[in-house]
Amino acid sequence: MTNIFSIPYRIRFSDCDPAGIVFYPQYFVMFNDLLEAWVDAILDGGFAGYIGKSRFGMPIVRLEADFVSVSEMGDDVDLELEVQRLGSKSISLEYRCVGKDEDLRMSVQQTLVTTSLDNHKSIEIPPALRSAIEHFLAPTSGEHSGYQGSRA
Amino acid sequence: MTNIFSIPYRIRFSDCDPAGIVFYPQYFVMFNDLLEAWVDAILDGGFAGYIGKSRFGMPIVRLEADFVSVSEMGDDVDLELEVQRLGSKSISLEYRCVGKDEDLRMSVQQTLVTTSLDNHKSIEIPPALRSAIEHFLAPTSGEHSGYQGSRA
Amino acid sequence: MTNIFSIPYRIRFSDCDPAGIVFYPQYFVMFNDLLEAWVDAILDGGFAGYIGKSRFGMPIVRLEADFVSVSEMGDDVDLELEVQRLGSKSISLEYRCVGKDEDLRMSVQQTLVTTSLDNHKSIEIPPALRSAIEHFLAPTSGEHSGYQGSRA
Amino acid sequence: MTNIFSIPYRIRFSDCDPAGIVFYPQYFVMFNDLLEAWVDAILDGGFAGYIGKSRFGMPIVRLEADFVSVSEMGDDVDLELEVQRLGSKSISLEYRCVGKDEDLRMSVQQTLVTTSLDNHKSIEIPPALRSAIEHFLAPTSGEHSGYQGSRA
Repeated sequence: MTNIFSIPYRIRFSDCDPAGIVFYPQYFVMFNDLLEAWVDAILDGGFAGYIGKSRFGMPIVRLEADFVSVSEMGDDVDLELEVQRLGSKSISLEYRCVGKDEDLRMSVQQTLVTTSLDNHKSIEIPPALRSAIEHFLAPTSGEHSGYQGSRA
Repeated sequence: MTNIFSIPYRIRFSDCDPAGIVFYPQYFVMFNDLLEAWVDAILDGGFAGYIGKSRFGMPIVRLEADFVSVSEMGDDVDLELEVQRLGSKSISLEYRCVGKDEDLRMSVQQTLVTTSLDNHKSIEIPPALRSAIEHFLAPTSGEHSGYQGSRA
Repeated sequence: MTNIFSIPYRIRFSDCDPAGIVFYPQYFVMFNDLLEAWVDAILDGGFAGYIGKSRFGMPIVRLEADFVSVSEMGDDVDLELEVQRLGSKSISLEYRCVGKDEDLRMSVQQTLVTTSLDNHKSIEIPPALRSAIEHFLAPTSGEHSGYQGSRA
Repeated sequence: MTNIFSIPYRIRFSDCDPAGIVFYPQYFVMFNDLLEAWVDAILDGGFAGYIGKSRFGMPIVRLEADFVSVSEMGDDVDLELEVQRLGSKSISLEYRCVGKDEDLRMSVQQTLVTTSLDNHKSIEIPPALRSAIEHFLAPTSGEHSGYQGSRA
């Protein structure tokens, strides 16, 4: 399980639409927050340091999403991030929203590229980020345990 | 061009992220609003009547999105909806965000199913909606002209 | 009525919550878009030019909001902006959401200050913006007619 | 401190605007999530049970907000909820966003009423909710400790 970053999440009123289920664009907001929490957990300076101070970006070039079953207000789910591929200038991730009975609600495959925020041009994955991801993929034993999200 | 529903749109501050470009989940909000405007334009009673009064739903089962180039605050774009396939219980749509130089910013292929909102179960596309879409796909001449969106 | 900037708006599915009515934070998004449309209409270069190129900001220092009656998905409303006070470094605005029977849904009084985006410090209202607002408040006859929003 | 419900929160990329600071409507989303987390913590069945199953609503009738200083992406803050008044059909709350140096970022005073979701009419605060709030305001010793939020 070392390749998966996971956060427990309760579906909020603010995530849901008049049908009482998650408004689907909101899944992408949740997963963007998850990506950010992952970078915070693995990279010194975190996501804000990477984007804000180092002026690097991580725009999406492609995504595919499958919606399997609905999530309702108050549901407790796990939001999962799994690294599928670490390229030279791109990263492929899978996100999943999974119910407490291990039932898959929806999943996303997403390819990100690394860019300079100053000109939005593609760059090699910065060494600090690459190193952090490689360490995430092959941690020394005993790491990755006990991560706990901190959002309301 | 009769198969395309299009609305001019100006990228708003509220659509954009700290990088100054459209926050990607926001594209899906824009396209959901576009879908709604389309149903409003073709169906008696509109989207609110379809969802709210008739208790039908149109959840997404799958989407693919390609992000080609960025859109910035203040950009004038066209949001386009094109019907790709009209099945018995599902509809496939393509959405596009296109700049004023006909440059594609991003596109989405999306498959929706029609459901009853009372049990979230799949149903045949309701006859009124099917008829409205068929009429959209093959309008009598002179229709489809002069549609104008009405959002701030 | 020359002091009021107004845009017709249809309440969207994406604006509404599981109770089927506008999720109240969404009113503030609508009014921010309205502010932007107003600046676009009165100022050369528009809101994006003001914020993005001139590096000026217009943060809020205070607001009061009264919620009178609910707005439901599909409702056609008018979103109104009225200038209450034009100070040396601040602007007070009132926003209203009004139904088609002139029934007030909710209203907001808001005070904005003008700042430099480079240090978030308060500055005098830039001359071009002040001049544009003064012109809006006392237009030559025949102006202000026929404004039409352009959002999906 | 028994009258305050507080959750640590990290300002996310998705909360911020092109100026790199919290887009102000997003504060109201955060505080709505906080209200929900509070009801989850004090009421059997939680917010989803209260809204979804019991068909009660808690719409806002009035709010005032003061914006004191900005919050940036990556900032660690505390989101606080304090009960100001428990009426017969209404509840007054204060929300605060406070930085790690106890610096107030912004605060909101808000009055909610309790309604039936079936007709949106005002009702007496339901006994279970009133009892839960009274217990929150005067807990037996040893409670309220160690609450930990669970959002990404």
